[in-house]
Amino acid sequence: MSAKDVAKAVVLLSGGLDSATTLAIAKEQGFDCHAVSFDYQQRHRSELAAAGEIAKFFGVSEHRIMKIDSGGHGGSALTDTDIAVPETPQQGIPVTYVPARNTVFLALALGYAEVIGANDIFIGVNAVDYSGYPDCRPEFIAAFEALANVATKAAVQGARVKMHTPLMEMDKSRIIKTGSKLGVDYSMTVSCYQADSKGRACGVCDSCRFRMAGFSAAGIVDPTRYA
Amino acid sequence: MSAKDVAKAVVLLSGGLDSATTLAIAKEQGFDCHAVSFDYQQRHRSELAAAGEIAKFFGVSEHRIMKIDSGGHGGSALTDTDIAVPETPQQGIPVTYVPARNTVFLALALGYAEVIGANDIFIGVNAVDYSGYPDCRPEFIAAFEALANVATKAAVQGARVKMHTPLMEMDKSRIIKTGSKLGVDYSMTVSCYQADSKGRACGVCDSCRFRMAGFSAAGIVDPTRYA
Repeated sequence: MSAKDVAKAVVLLSGGLDSATTLAIAKEQGFDCHAVSFDYQQRHRSELAAAGEIAKFFGVSEHRIMKIDSGGHGGSALTDTDIAVPETPQQGIPVTYVPARNTVFLALALGYAEVIGANDIFIGVNAVDYSGYPDCRPEFIAAFEALANVATKAAVQGARVKMHTPLMEMDKSRIIKTGSKLGVDYSMTVSCYQADSKGRACGVCDSCRFRMAGFSAAGIVDPTRYA
Repeated sequence: MSAKDVAKAVVLLSGGLDSATTLAIAKEQGFDCHAVSFDYQQRHRSELAAAGEIAKFFGVSEHRIMKIDSGGHGGSALTDTDIAVPETPQQGIPVTYVPARNTVFLALALGYAEVIGANDIFIGVNAVDYSGYPDCRPEFIAAFEALANVATKAAVQGARVKMHTPLMEMDKSRIIKTGSKLGVDYSMTVSCYQADSKGRACGVCDSCRFRMAGFSAAGIVDPTRYA
């Protein structure tokens, strides 16, 4: 697709490394990007400030922050400060899993897409260097796309939603190399699950470890600010 | 399923006639019911107070109100006071359609179900006397069930989510007869799209018209309070 088509896309932007790279790819593909971030009482809310910086950096047409208050802690280390963020590798699906998070995020993104007339939704999920979250897998994305195409007025009227997951098969090193070529300033991004209020990373959580190893393997200097 | 199994269910409870009947059916089927309502800046917020009364009436184990702020009006007469609620029957999908609403509601209900360990989700959608909303159709519910069964940690670990839509094939009259037999006090319910702050109905919107016709066809006195 060339830039002159100016098709609109909704890009999920967490403020982390993966979603910033995804936004860069969507821009490169010529989409008119509308970014959406979610305030869900996450522990690492400094990622929202990061998302704002990244959105501005890439000149998105709109950056919307949606608030979700599910009226409870949600049984995850990312939303419940009574559950500690693990600082060593874990077996299986970790306690940082947030029940149905990507289902909720994509549902809201779908509504946003319908309102602005976008048929393309980008999400930076990844099935290689990831934490084993079920809602990052290709089968989840395929099922969501199928749902999206029966869920909306736009779908009934013939529009087809396409889910874009450009990072799905990339390892962290390749994601970082790809983003670097596209001009992503990774110093703006916050990956840490327990970043402090200034966006400084812990360096020991799952997300920090994947990120560090990625920069190392890519042979690119890690610009992350550690606490 | 008998009451002694005490399987937990999440029941979407809007405060309207259909969801109140659905809750009565879920209780009758022996589920330990957890009700969830959504505050999404809807015009007819008095339905939330109604939902609270109904939840109490049926003695649910928990009634959670989740807040969603999508950061915009959402392009619907139900969330944007600049768009009038139609007071005569409309062709096609009406302006009261809220983009991806049931996708968002069910996504949040799925997260709630996972947190409390419920595999059953009840929603009072109906494909007979309805307004043509795409996310009330059987194909939408089937697609959501398929999504739910790849989306969560519980699913990966072998749980199966079942969607229950007991009203799907009922007309409004049969819904009202069914609920009346199960003890639903319909005076508590608010169906109107533009009910006033006291929960009094307009009597002319789509939702009021379906409701009135339903009571009339059922031969049951309509307890609705009209403004």
